Amino acid sequence: MTMEKAIAFAQNNRDRFLRDLQELLQIPSVSTFSEYTAETQRAAEWLLYRLLKLGFEARLLPMDGPQIVYAARMHPDPKTPVVLLYGHYDVQPAEPLEEWVTPPYSPTVRGENLYARGASDMKGPLMAYLAALESILATDSLPVSVKVLFEGEEEVGSPHLADALKKHRQLLSCDAVLNCDTLILSPELPTIVYGLRGLAYFELRVETAEHDLHSGLFGGAIPNAGQVLAELIAGMHDPQGRVTLPHFYDDVLPIEPDERAELARVPWTEKDFIAQATALGVIGEEGYTIVERIGARPTLEVNGLLCGFTGEGSKTVLPARAMAKLSMRLVPDQKPERVKEQLEEYLRQRAPAWVKWDVIDLAGSPAGIVRRDTPAMQAAIRALEAAFGVRPVFAREGGSVPVVSWIQDILGRESIMMGISLPDDNLHAPNEKLHLPTLWRGVEAYIRFFYELAK
Amino acid sequence: MTMEKAIAFAQNNRDRFLRDLQELLQIPSVSTFSEYTAETQRAAEWLLYRLLKLGFEARLLPMDGPQIVYAARMHPDPKTPVVLLYGHYDVQPAEPLEEWVTPPYSPTVRGENLYARGASDMKGPLMAYLAALESILATDSLPVSVKVLFEGEEEVGSPHLADALKKHRQLLSCDAVLNCDTLILSPELPTIVYGLRGLAYFELRVETAEHDLHSGLFGGAIPNAGQVLAELIAGMHDPQGRVTLPHFYDDVLPIEPDERAELARVPWTEKDFIAQATALGVIGEEGYTIVERIGARPTLEVNGLLCGFTGEGSKTVLPARAMAKLSMRLVPDQKPERVKEQLEEYLRQRAPAWVKWDVIDLAGSPAGIVRRDTPAMQAAIRALEAAFGVRPVFAREGGSVPVVSWIQDILGRESIMMGISLPDDNLHAPNEKLHLPTLWRGVEAYIRFFYELAK
Repeated sequence: MTMEKAIAFAQNNRDRFLRDLQELLQIPSVSTFSEYTAETQRAAEWLLYRLLKLGFEARLLPMDGPQIVYAARMHPDPKTPVVLLYGHYDVQPAEPLEEWVTPPYSPTVRGENLYARGASDMKGPLMAYLAALESILATDSLPVSVKVLFEGEEEVGSPHLADALKKHRQLLSCDAVLNCDTLILSPELPTIVYGLRGLAYFELRVETAEHDLHSGLFGGAIPNAGQVLAELIAGMHDPQGRVTLPHFYDDVLPIEPDERAELARVPWTEKDFIAQATALGVIGEEGYTIVERIGARPTLEVNGLLCGFTGEGSKTVLPARAMAKLSMRLVPDQKPERVKEQLEEYLRQRAPAWVKWDVIDLAGSPAGIVRRDTPAMQAAIRALEAAFGVRPVFAREGGSVPVVSWIQDILGRESIMMGISLPDDNLHAPNEKLHLPTLWRGVEAYIRFFYELAK
Repeated sequence: MTMEKAIAFAQNNRDRFLRDLQELLQIPSVSTFSEYTAETQRAAEWLLYRLLKLGFEARLLPMDGPQIVYAARMHPDPKTPVVLLYGHYDVQPAEPLEEWVTPPYSPTVRGENLYARGASDMKGPLMAYLAALESILATDSLPVSVKVLFEGEEEVGSPHLADALKKHRQLLSCDAVLNCDTLILSPELPTIVYGLRGLAYFELRVETAEHDLHSGLFGGAIPNAGQVLAELIAGMHDPQGRVTLPHFYDDVLPIEPDERAELARVPWTEKDFIAQATALGVIGEEGYTIVERIGARPTLEVNGLLCGFTGEGSKTVLPARAMAKLSMRLVPDQKPERVKEQLEEYLRQRAPAWVKWDVIDLAGSPAGIVRRDTPAMQAAIRALEAAFGVRPVFAREGGSVPVVSWIQDILGRESIMMGISLPDDNLHAPNEKLHLPTLWRGVEAYIRFFYELAK
């Protein structure tokens, strides 16, 4: 009965929750660029203030990077389960700005969606946590103890988080973890993600001369940094779509037959997937379905290229330097450190003697998989089924949420991942959006999860 | 005797000529960027004023692009030969600025060299023309009729010059053309360039989706614009260093045995060439010497690459678009229009169906070759031998001077190319310089050329 009251409160307060979310989305908390440091801090303080208003003990944990918003509201009965809510308040850069229909930090509702940088990844989910907590607290007391860990550097690979988890292990101790930084496959299909890819992100720099040269006077006889970078990148895949870094697949766990069957239940058609991506076709590793390629197989991607003259018009320069941002999505049991060695070994084998190269680490996290049979997982299944009217599917997701592995290793707890971000939400891209009906169902599911967990 | 007086005058006025050159070099007349239009105009006016002071009839020819500085000082005897001096007052962009030891538009003498953008290409040579003319006029009258054509858009491929030559064919009629926008192989080795490569410059754009995507959610199954661009570029050369565009070599005139012998006289060692380029090795087409690769064989170069995220840090984007600036250096009888067809044919054959591509023309000019046995060429040989004490070598140069072909086609005159730019002058690169002893020998050679031509 009390749970139903909380759900009704949430329904009746949607307009206000939406306004609150729009306020948070106006803060450009871009962790990638140092000039946004003050804005990132402002987002942390906004959340801190909200949690204090909800009666949580809350504070910012001192960090080398953006601060962690920590909060707790403990149940009087110490035997009540403790759930830790994980989230991040930083967002990806909004560039290229000219591709946004409405400005990235002017949240705008069009149809059933709210458009803004961070709407889906993941200020919307943060707001769903807060709305669920407020709805319960307005009508009841919390049925479980709740702790909050909202970080501000997820989009740059959470470089300081593992140390913070170690340092505050006691403070963050819990029985279950809820992490909604994952996808829901469709508005009608509640989704529990049980596997996440890891990430190894590098900058590869090549240099062929001390400075740029005249392409007429030296072209055809002196190496071209852009050309050699293109050749090195082209060689990183074979015609079967496999990554050619030496030993790249040595640590990759094969997909078991029962898992292939489970993944085959994910209702993606190639046509829908291409349409979602606004692309013209699919590529990938031979012998695997799209769902397997995205969730259960490793990849190597070019994230950026920069070389020579890129301005308006023409400049007949023979470039001396070229740079690529390269990242690999990892699956169990690959490790970022090993992948770096594999990339360096590839370069030792393939780069000509007349090229200097350097590999710079930018971010890294291992892949993660969680069990599907824990009590917290059962509570999540029941909550989702009740809120959506459909039994959830289990999926492996292509993205990386390094905190899942770290929490598992450091706090000893597996994360329940039931996000509200749709595959076509334009995450990390222009015109990021949040599907509002899914947000509201998410709020209900999270309310139900707290109650189910207490049973 | 009068010629000796002019040469003495030039020697006695070097300091002033140098100061004048430094004044001209302070004007950032970058034709590539529209924001420098006013500066480019200022350089034209500076030259106009100098020519008027030398008693020339001078004016700016109205143009769609930067204006041509035209001037003439005709000999009283209409049978006297008319020599047309060609030059350009625009310069390449100076970027990357941080690599300059002293700022590009603050001309600075260090040792025997003057450092500034345009010092060698080609405000130094322009000043050599002016110094030669002034030295003769201060001590004698001009032994030949002299016309001047200084253009302001050479560094962007002279898009309006051919039309201007057609329109002003009568005004520019002449018996010989002097064009010093070419190399001298060493300060001790006067050089006459008789062959120049042409240029075909394109921007290649590829697109694989409507917008950038999340590399975790789509990577491994949706095409990556950076990856496909790298693969397309890598495929443009075969392992023997030959360009793979279909029919690329069909129009290439082979190098004749006597020409190979002449080119073999050019005293470049691989080691010196590598050192000049500040590189670590050489590459190129199998079966040809470095001198042949640079002067007599066509090439394909990457001039720039831009794709995805290139800022500080990491962004896990799957780029939807990528761009390459690509240019081909052409040799007789290749034509830029044909090369564009060949590039498009390559893309039709090689680009996957899921990539949209577009080729944008940025600049183009055919290659050129001139005869070595004309009277004007004989005058140039005598002038250089007297000024340097060494018989000049004949060379084919890798750069493109489209005006040479156009003057040949439209005005019916072959150009005498005896420049004073050394191979290590950092043309089109940071720390461009001019070797001052070579400048002064050039001034003497040009004075002598006018007198030799009158004989």
